[in-house]
Amino acid sequence: MANNDVTDTHPAWLDDDTLEDVRGQVPMVYVEAVPVRVDHLGRIEKVGLLLRAQQDGSVSRAVVSGRVLHNESLRDALWRHLNKDLGPDASPAIPPGVAPFTVAEYFSDEELGDFHDPRQHAVALGYLVPCSGECHPAQDALDLAWLSPAEATSSHIAEEMSAGHGRLVRRALAFVGQLP
Amino acid sequence: MANNDVTDTHPAWLDDDTLEDVRGQVPMVYVEAVPVRVDHLGRIEKVGLLLRAQQDGSVSRAVVSGRVLHNESLRDALWRHLNKDLGPDASPAIPPGVAPFTVAEYFSDEELGDFHDPRQHAVALGYLVPCSGECHPAQDALDLAWLSPAEATSSHIAEEMSAGHGRLVRRALAFVGQLP
Amino acid sequence: MANNDVTDTHPAWLDDDTLEDVRGQVPMVYVEAVPVRVDHLGRIEKVGLLLRAQQDGSVSRAVVSGRVLHNESLRDALWRHLNKDLGPDASPAIPPGVAPFTVAEYFSDEELGDFHDPRQHAVALGYLVPCSGECHPAQDALDLAWLSPAEATSSHIAEEMSAGHGRLVRRALAFVGQLP
Amino acid sequence: MANNDVTDTHPAWLDDDTLEDVRGQVPMVYVEAVPVRVDHLGRIEKVGLLLRAQQDGSVSRAVVSGRVLHNESLRDALWRHLNKDLGPDASPAIPPGVAPFTVAEYFSDEELGDFHDPRQHAVALGYLVPCSGECHPAQDALDLAWLSPAEATSSHIAEEMSAGHGRLVRRALAFVGQLP
Repeated sequence: MANNDVTDTHPAWLDDDTLEDVRGQVPMVYVEAVPVRVDHLGRIEKVGLLLRAQQDGSVSRAVVSGRVLHNESLRDALWRHLNKDLGPDASPAIPPGVAPFTVAEYFSDEELGDFHDPRQHAVALGYLVPCSGECHPAQDALDLAWLSPAEATSSHIAEEMSAGHGRLVRRALAFVGQLP
Repeated sequence: MANNDVTDTHPAWLDDDTLEDVRGQVPMVYVEAVPVRVDHLGRIEKVGLLLRAQQDGSVSRAVVSGRVLHNESLRDALWRHLNKDLGPDASPAIPPGVAPFTVAEYFSDEELGDFHDPRQHAVALGYLVPCSGECHPAQDALDLAWLSPAEATSSHIAEEMSAGHGRLVRRALAFVGQLP
Repeated sequence: MANNDVTDTHPAWLDDDTLEDVRGQVPMVYVEAVPVRVDHLGRIEKVGLLLRAQQDGSVSRAVVSGRVLHNESLRDALWRHLNKDLGPDASPAIPPGVAPFTVAEYFSDEELGDFHDPRQHAVALGYLVPCSGECHPAQDALDLAWLSPAEATSSHIAEEMSAGHGRLVRRALAFVGQLP
Repeated sequence: MANNDVTDTHPAWLDDDTLEDVRGQVPMVYVEAVPVRVDHLGRIEKVGLLLRAQQDGSVSRAVVSGRVLHNESLRDALWRHLNKDLGPDASPAIPPGVAPFTVAEYFSDEELGDFHDPRQHAVALGYLVPCSGECHPAQDALDLAWLSPAEATSSHIAEEMSAGHGRLVRRALAFVGQLP
């Protein structure tokens, strides 16, 4: 079964059972990247949203997101997940700043916070990543749509977003001063 | 034996063996807080450095640092470690901004990056925390020294710092525009 | 007549005519502060909004905002305007970080950007300022209301906000991870 | 005489006398850009420093820096100065985030702060700008040198830097987690 987290060809490979186990014991480190098209002045023209089939059979929109492996750097993890989700020609420009523009905390207990992930407690570091190349949704993504900031934050798109990802996009647009 | 990470009275308690196990499989989430005294304009007057006995018997200076537990929020973890290390009257002002000012990545493999932690791969989110109350080093800290920005970044103090913590203090002072 | 900008007892005093003149020639530097009440973990509980009578006779809600004078530091300007607008007992905690969390650009030509100020081109550096003391609206403010994040970003409050200030509040809440 | 500030073909043109006048009355808004070469993971490989002849006949190293004109956006000002100083083929990637990573305040009165500019009080917003294209020092720059982070922060280069620019480079490297 394709599982985003464990099929990477990386020494820090964990089998599904062990990963399941570890997930109940410590927070997992995630990186989340909002892919954007920018103009020559760095202003966002389009936000890239992946269309993904979820495990429950529903389809929802999402940004690039994935787990950081043992002894993998945040930058390497960003690069790996951007390549996996947007294809090898996306030319992502990972920002030089080391700090994320936001952090999203997903708790397995729904009552603990705003973001919820029934599988695990995840601490996700959010980055904004301009992509200047050809993006082809890879892996389990069905499609990649480039939406204007106004579209990306519209209520009908918000309803189609994976848990927490709509909020992440709004934070990203606020960060760049383009939240409508 | 007192172990900073596992003796907390928290549901996410892990026994030493399990923690050891998990540490080899996924990155651990840490928070690091640089305690500071600020004037009424928010400028740093003093940086607080703990004097700690290390496991190898040596003594070194450190900022507040500790692991984030399962389903514990970053803010709760900051509060817990600040209280544990500076005592209950420190009145730490945890910053409202959700993103850390820096991230330090400690790899268990020394060759992977600048920061090294033989026990584990840790992703540490760094915050600057003004403390206006009485600080009393608690737990395993031997002393707490308040140094000026110039002293805190001097070469003789740098030599006494725990791995990575001198660098964290310099980044903190650069962040506030007070790196000498 | 009371004019927020020119009646300060500061050596960089400009008479009204000269200020008018200068305003047409270079951008003015402003600081804007979003006053907030925070809990012990740094989470925003309330956002403070001033009720101000505008020059056209209307009444609108606003954050703390004012011009930076010649040879006045940003921190001194923040302190001066916070004291002027919230009174001397507000105990504002100006953040140690030197960079603003956002920048708002107000152009005198409406077509140049999202923010508009018919009087001038202003570059406003935005800060989030926790206030733990008693706040009494001073100067030309009619009232100070403490609203929850949800209220402060509701559509009926948004309609009552001064030009740009509603957007600034939303950016502030996104910055702290509390934008609804 | 070539004067960086007043010979731009922009409606907000000021003659030298008027500019001189205005400079004594309000702070000037500046943008400062640290040009860098980055690898595919966003890590800085080289820092670009301009060699400039100063008005007093001395030669010093500097980052890209210049005034923001009336009704000019910060992004337009960054673009204009980057093009002017690095040539039209530099391909600067202006960061999407609207807030600068640092702010430097230059006071005309030397005792007021760390940065000093005898001509004026300037508030300079600092940005880090990856440049992927060919850079040719233009205008009054004599040369452009690409130095490693270690070289750029070495003491002998620090001595050759224009007032404040060495500090800006160190802050930039701290911001990206690469301050040696």
